[in-house]
Amino acid sequence: MIELNFSNMMEDVVGVNGLSGGIIENFRDRIEDAHKQIQDRAWPELAFIDLLSQDTSEIKNTARHIRETSENFLILGIGGSALGPRAILEAMSPFHNLRKKPRVFIYDNVDPRTLKHIISLVDLKTTSVNVISKSGSTAETAASFLILWNKMKKVLGREASNRFIVTTDPEKGNLRKIVNEEGLRSLIIPQGVVGRYSVLSSVGLLLAKVIGIDSDELLRGAMDIHKKCSDSELWQNPAYLFGVLLYLMDKEKHRTINVMVPYADSLKPLSEWFCQLWAESLGKEEKGLTPYPSLGATDQHSQLQLWTEGLQDKVIIFIRINDYGVDIKIPDIFKGTEGFNYLSGHTLSELIKAEEEATELALAKAGRPNMTIIIPQIDAYHLGQLFHFFEIAAAFIGALFGINPFNQPGVEEGKNLTYGMMGKKGFGAKRKEVEEHRAKRGKWKVNKLNLSQCPHNCKTN
Amino acid sequence: MIELNFSNMMEDVVGVNGLSGGIIENFRDRIEDAHKQIQDRAWPELAFIDLLSQDTSEIKNTARHIRETSENFLILGIGGSALGPRAILEAMSPFHNLRKKPRVFIYDNVDPRTLKHIISLVDLKTTSVNVISKSGSTAETAASFLILWNKMKKVLGREASNRFIVTTDPEKGNLRKIVNEEGLRSLIIPQGVVGRYSVLSSVGLLLAKVIGIDSDELLRGAMDIHKKCSDSELWQNPAYLFGVLLYLMDKEKHRTINVMVPYADSLKPLSEWFCQLWAESLGKEEKGLTPYPSLGATDQHSQLQLWTEGLQDKVIIFIRINDYGVDIKIPDIFKGTEGFNYLSGHTLSELIKAEEEATELALAKAGRPNMTIIIPQIDAYHLGQLFHFFEIAAAFIGALFGINPFNQPGVEEGKNLTYGMMGKKGFGAKRKEVEEHRAKRGKWKVNKLNLSQCPHNCKTN
Repeated sequence: MIELNFSNMMEDVVGVNGLSGGIIENFRDRIEDAHKQIQDRAWPELAFIDLLSQDTSEIKNTARHIRETSENFLILGIGGSALGPRAILEAMSPFHNLRKKPRVFIYDNVDPRTLKHIISLVDLKTTSVNVISKSGSTAETAASFLILWNKMKKVLGREASNRFIVTTDPEKGNLRKIVNEEGLRSLIIPQGVVGRYSVLSSVGLLLAKVIGIDSDELLRGAMDIHKKCSDSELWQNPAYLFGVLLYLMDKEKHRTINVMVPYADSLKPLSEWFCQLWAESLGKEEKGLTPYPSLGATDQHSQLQLWTEGLQDKVIIFIRINDYGVDIKIPDIFKGTEGFNYLSGHTLSELIKAEEEATELALAKAGRPNMTIIIPQIDAYHLGQLFHFFEIAAAFIGALFGINPFNQPGVEEGKNLTYGMMGKKGFGAKRKEVEEHRAKRGKWKVNKLNLSQCPHNCKTN
Repeated sequence: MIELNFSNMMEDVVGVNGLSGGIIENFRDRIEDAHKQIQDRAWPELAFIDLLSQDTSEIKNTARHIRETSENFLILGIGGSALGPRAILEAMSPFHNLRKKPRVFIYDNVDPRTLKHIISLVDLKTTSVNVISKSGSTAETAASFLILWNKMKKVLGREASNRFIVTTDPEKGNLRKIVNEEGLRSLIIPQGVVGRYSVLSSVGLLLAKVIGIDSDELLRGAMDIHKKCSDSELWQNPAYLFGVLLYLMDKEKHRTINVMVPYADSLKPLSEWFCQLWAESLGKEEKGLTPYPSLGATDQHSQLQLWTEGLQDKVIIFIRINDYGVDIKIPDIFKGTEGFNYLSGHTLSELIKAEEEATELALAKAGRPNMTIIIPQIDAYHLGQLFHFFEIAAAFIGALFGINPFNQPGVEEGKNLTYGMMGKKGFGAKRKEVEEHRAKRGKWKVNKLNLSQCPHNCKTN
């Protein structure tokens, strides 16, 4: 079971920048309200909780089909449709494409250079494509789906239809319509489950099974942590404690940035998954938290300076791994080189664990609050725990802030302007807006041909 | 030549959250002082500027040797010794290890799981190892060097010495000592050049040549932008304008987070390289800026909600690519599915460029300042420009803040505590500190066995 140690968030350990037990206790009513909102399913999108007891037989059948037919598995999706699968892939099977079949490619952009490379790297004849979009209308995913459909049809003819697996809404949307018309294989993202809370649906589980991971273990881990994270007693509920500590650090100490630092290369994508969950759930109405992706021990040589001596606006969240499963001994050589002697006889995991603990303490000594999530090892069971733990915490923090942790109204305008520029029917006014803005932008730029000058109105402040 | 468009930073375009030309003009004296500090080499570490005219013949010879002898090229380094090489590798040769020889592995951690995988993936008999550490005493790099040295010796015997290339200080440090004793090949990081400003030294150039990139083009690009970035006239100097805009957004508008968003998968590591440069150079004395790594269009589905509606603390920096070099047409199929029709006939690069411009405007409309660095294409020449542009800007912003952009005093304590835990001579007191801290931490935690209780002193706020 994962463990949370939050002593370096508390004033008796970290000094005036920390919180007191009393501040948390005084906040009890708000905590109980938030707990009630979750228990009462105040938002239908809390349906992600029901994923823990889903029937996975269709997912398993589909994975078997893919493994039997394919040497390459290509995921087309963006945001939650890509970050969850990638977090599972990297954590459970590092360097996957150099070691195992089917190779996995996750195309979560519209960068033409990337797609050219992927298409040149895979034999489409032995490729399965998983198209993932809850709404069925995501522009990026639609574009790559159309391209791949066309190419697969050319290579495979009618058989192409048998190589597409569409993961989308059970009833609605463009992709569901195409599934029905073409008779494609499909999996569902249940009603109510939104992208960033979908990793434990078919979105993540199919990939897990395709690469040979026991998806039931992901769910079992999530279920076990869910029991603890349903406890109304704050001091026994790690997700609520985690949430309230981050919320109070914002409200009481103006620490608005939450840096996520797992001490394992393979958990870097988990850190990016966490950032989407936090950013889209908790960044709205000019409030909320800014998540920050990081990696230990690597970023001690990149970000630690900033955490220790930069602005007092961050909380650092470590993920400590108790057992890396493998280890390597540092040999006792170059004895004449005194500067290296202290390493000899130790192992890499001793060194990385020492660095993690030393960094916690160094930050605490500098009065920089931090806390640590401790996992026994990196496996499907504990990965499932981490996913669900953060999801419950996100919903809970949203409730504390009084915001809806399941919507993302701030992304609509960019989509509409894109539609305008791409000539979508009904968005002509948006196209005009872009053109007007372009004209306005000409004034302020520097380049080799058109050196900007201080414009004539410079002196009027 | 790269171009900077900063109109969405200005109040006549973006409204009250923007800056006026007058505010910038009034700041002229400080700008001139900072310019003078750079021109006068106020810090010896401005030596990175001299890299642009370095002699690269030894780097090229070394690269030729590696290409002739090796199917795998393993870099051991961390921080600036890894982020620069990785930025070059990904930008210039995406999916490198699936397409080309020698394959490249960059081990920039002490995660035992990662190193086990790398060792199982490469045939050490055909591997060259580049050990990179300016000081020659970086703990992580030393540990992996000792392990690889031992393993290579077992496999290759005396020939192993011929497969190590050590990149370090020209005279000092543990690694230089070993180079001299063992007669190893070595390259230098010149006096004064610190890790995060070293990408255009042998640190990055060797990797570039090994993967077949013209390292002279990197330097030529940097040299060309350097001329522009040496101009004392602010309005003709893109690095100074970039710097002063970010500085004033901090001082005048409390926008302290600089989000770096290149619109190309292959520039994601550049964004991480930028973050180290910014974080270590500008995060000190409780002031400075917090860089944030991002990727377009991908993070429109992850971070855009937060940029548009979250706290008013960010400036978004786009990197727009005018020409992706390749393109893919979106086919005109599924005509019955109205929701997809607007995409047909367009290309992927049209879509990604429309998304980038739409996102700029959507943010501007929401009163969220942003600016855009425009590059004609992704090649060595423009990559060299980007590196040097950001380096000059970092030094300049450091001067504006009145901090030293070249030191990193905040990382020392973590190192000392690690030494203590690893039993390094003279650090016994640090070990004791860790042990005392551990005891103190026991009180505040939640896990399955040891449920925390609200401690008895909770009620005293």
